[in-house]
Amino acid sequence: MINPSSILSGDRRALARLLTQIENGAPEAESALAALFPHTGRAHLIGLTGAPGTGKSSLVNELTKTLRSQNHTVAILAIDPSSPFTGGAILGDRIRMRDLAGDPGVFIRSMASRGSSGGLARATADAIKALDAAGFEKILIETVGAGQAEVDIARAAHTVLVIEAPGLGDDVQAIKAGLLEIADVFVVNKADLPGAENAARALRASLDLAHPVARTWADDKMRGHHQPTFNSTPEPVKSEKDLTGLRWNPPILQTVALEGQGITEVVEALEQHRHHLHASGELKQREREGLAYELKTRLREALFAEMLTRLGNGKLNAVVERVLAREVDPASAARQLAKDW
Amino acid sequence: MINPSSILSGDRRALARLLTQIENGAPEAESALAALFPHTGRAHLIGLTGAPGTGKSSLVNELTKTLRSQNHTVAILAIDPSSPFTGGAILGDRIRMRDLAGDPGVFIRSMASRGSSGGLARATADAIKALDAAGFEKILIETVGAGQAEVDIARAAHTVLVIEAPGLGDDVQAIKAGLLEIADVFVVNKADLPGAENAARALRASLDLAHPVARTWADDKMRGHHQPTFNSTPEPVKSEKDLTGLRWNPPILQTVALEGQGITEVVEALEQHRHHLHASGELKQREREGLAYELKTRLREALFAEMLTRLGNGKLNAVVERVLAREVDPASAARQLAKDW
Repeated sequence: MINPSSILSGDRRALARLLTQIENGAPEAESALAALFPHTGRAHLIGLTGAPGTGKSSLVNELTKTLRSQNHTVAILAIDPSSPFTGGAILGDRIRMRDLAGDPGVFIRSMASRGSSGGLARATADAIKALDAAGFEKILIETVGAGQAEVDIARAAHTVLVIEAPGLGDDVQAIKAGLLEIADVFVVNKADLPGAENAARALRASLDLAHPVARTWADDKMRGHHQPTFNSTPEPVKSEKDLTGLRWNPPILQTVALEGQGITEVVEALEQHRHHLHASGELKQREREGLAYELKTRLREALFAEMLTRLGNGKLNAVVERVLAREVDPASAARQLAKDW
Repeated sequence: MINPSSILSGDRRALARLLTQIENGAPEAESALAALFPHTGRAHLIGLTGAPGTGKSSLVNELTKTLRSQNHTVAILAIDPSSPFTGGAILGDRIRMRDLAGDPGVFIRSMASRGSSGGLARATADAIKALDAAGFEKILIETVGAGQAEVDIARAAHTVLVIEAPGLGDDVQAIKAGLLEIADVFVVNKADLPGAENAARALRASLDLAHPVARTWADDKMRGHHQPTFNSTPEPVKSEKDLTGLRWNPPILQTVALEGQGITEVVEALEQHRHHLHASGELKQREREGLAYELKTRLREALFAEMLTRLGNGKLNAVVERVLAREVDPASAARQLAKDW
């Protein structure tokens, strides 16, 4: 087992080994993570997402350089979308390493999963905890924006930055629509290209259209049920902005990451959002929701593992054969198995 | 409840209503689906995936036209990646409708989920069953390729078609890597653009490099455990190609979908793959694995729902507060709850 105190005292190689264990789903990681958990909750968790072609990696690079010039320690966690199949870690490391390598205040890691549904979400949550306990002040969690990975990021991060660029195709615009609701800060990168002003304007118009759901944390609190509730129906990805007069209005900023333009303003917006979270009490609420979601996810897995152990393969395979023969449908079969147990 | 016999007899409005219920996770859908399930298993399920910008929607359009000219009935199910947030259904319907609307042998539907993890996978599986029971011979399941949705497609489809295009950026290439392992047929679309030959060549080289895992269905069968096993570790997305002399070598085809070029060849390749699945016995194996996976997913949800009902919110919220106070870590808390139960 990796000694948790080496990680707490800044041993980068121990941290890297733990992250590898987390990525591989190694059981040894669990006790280290349990020991590190009391030391988490200090970092500012920043999710960054955007469609392919928006220049996300360059932006993350530049943000890191600016954060470093302000003496913040920075960890970058790149979530690799190709991972369910290859287990490879491809995203952006190559370029990035050139600029940031050798700086002990920066730690860069790509994260892949081994194909299990939910595996990547769990690994990401664990990796964030390890980096948080290791003392990094800013943890940048980066994904290519299209799907469940972004929902999971939104649940885990304090501040979500969505990256756009002018002139992307229809498919990309479709992806964009889904990101509107989770963004705290928007960046239109490649702002030197034609159409950047239009992209920013379209974004503003979409934002104004997207009326947030009326249910807010403040509302819930007044009704006396400000804790997350457990049920199996979908829940909002994050608490809506509060209505206590401290409502956050997502800014739309323009950058040219490759030339370092507009980066300081983005770092400032991230910092302002962090202040907002503290001042409004939303930070605690996001943390509660994130941990509640994580607990539910893990509970679901733990229950299932427990059941498989006790029930054995034979019984389950027999049910699969009945389903295959169309004697029973999968939903009814699952319900019956759960009830019988 | 929707009368299952209306769907079996070709009532499109009943089918559309059922799909809406499925999408909304309405419990009424369950009994209809249970009644329809014995009538499934006849359609050829074709998954189509590709990064944004590859011209996927145009290709699906053209494939549909060619399949129609051969008198096949076709259902198109477009999985909407923006769905976890907006519940909207955006993908490609607009263009498509122009060409294919009014043809009773074509049915087009976008599918979104309401934010629950796994909800989209379940809804997709159910929608496929509904379309299958409704008698469509070809069901085209379309996603924007980046992540878990593709794994789920690969589990559900018989034939997976991966769409590429020349001249896409680095991010897109990273996505591509993950799709190599699930493809049965490759299409390089926009083959009139510079770089198409290179893209096809690079694809061929990557394919040659990607040695398939030695474990095959044929191997398993010889060892006497050809049924899917249940455990909580990741499993291969699909059975590897068999080694019975009927090994499938994924073809790489070139198309210009916007001009209808190369489409007939793609339809032929899909048909050949279907024949291969029948001849090699792989069809039954894929179906078994797909249904086993679905059963497991549903069982996991059913168990969790059962537990929440019996345990109640109070107990779980108390645990969340302990986690928030860093008295216990989420993994240990989940394990303890599952064990106690």
